[in-house]
Amino acid sequence: MEISKRELISFKERKFPEDICFRPIGIVHSPFEGLTGIPIQPSMSNANGKIEIFKQYQDALKNLDGFSHIFCLFFFDMVKLPVPLQSKPFLKDEIMGVFAIRTPFRPNPIGLSVLELIEVRDNLLFVNNLDILDKTPVIDIKPYVPQFDNRESTKIGWLAGSIRHKIS
Amino acid sequence: MEISKRELISFKERKFPEDICFRPIGIVHSPFEGLTGIPIQPSMSNANGKIEIFKQYQDALKNLDGFSHIFCLFFFDMVKLPVPLQSKPFLKDEIMGVFAIRTPFRPNPIGLSVLELIEVRDNLLFVNNLDILDKTPVIDIKPYVPQFDNRESTKIGWLAGSIRHKIS
Repeated sequence: MEISKRELISFKERKFPEDICFRPIGIVHSPFEGLTGIPIQPSMSNANGKIEIFKQYQDALKNLDGFSHIFCLFFFDMVKLPVPLQSKPFLKDEIMGVFAIRTPFRPNPIGLSVLELIEVRDNLLFVNNLDILDKTPVIDIKPYVPQFDNRESTKIGWLAGSIRHKIS
Repeated sequence: MEISKRELISFKERKFPEDICFRPIGIVHSPFEGLTGIPIQPSMSNANGKIEIFKQYQDALKNLDGFSHIFCLFFFDMVKLPVPLQSKPFLKDEIMGVFAIRTPFRPNPIGLSVLELIEVRDNLLFVNNLDILDKTPVIDIKPYVPQFDNRESTKIGWLAGSIRHKIS
């Protein structure tokens, strides 16, 4: 493990970036090996799978096992860019802006799933509610904290009335 | 607006990426112009601000105004890499793995905030609960949907007992 300090650049050096590049920190092992049958959201999935965190990042997992849920940020690596800025969501037959829907086809194809964390074993996260394609590159893992992340009274725009209908 | 189809690469072309590069789709305008005084989480902030979505992505905002909350994914552009894989969180005096805390100092310095969406005016999102530094690059906007994103019964590991203490 490389020892490094937490350091910031100075405001003088700060420059708005043209590109923002990341490295995968892990890979998803999922029962979904093809593009059909993947649940549209983790909350609609009972699938189990594993997130393999690459060995060089394993030390970053310390204390994660105390959490029952995690945010998994991942890269929709099969999406071809550029994408249309408006398209039809899965749950409604109407054209929407892609920032108002959860489609993988977004200018920056990042996925965000709240997954149940069953167990942490070495560099493997055993998870439930998986809605992610097998072999998907993982960008970040964050603990899910209802006190930070839950919002109770929300308007859900075009989705109102669409969710129950499609699930049942 | 460029017209493009939603397209996927083939499984044959699929190759695990070494780098994953994104382009900022917007910039945060926030009252927090320095590094002190920034709330540690949106749920602890009453600050108002704006997210400016760059004009070329404005069409992707259609229908977003129906939502009361959004996920804002952003880049902690002032973080110097590499970061330590373990460090002390703001809320506890103990060394933790960075995937078990919400520090900006992460291998891929991506921030995730649930913000209240007050108004959408052209390419500007007027938001509350802001906890983001001024001029921060924005990577993605997603609608926040409690039915997808809320988890009620969760274990919050080391944070149990620490949250109320620090806020009050």
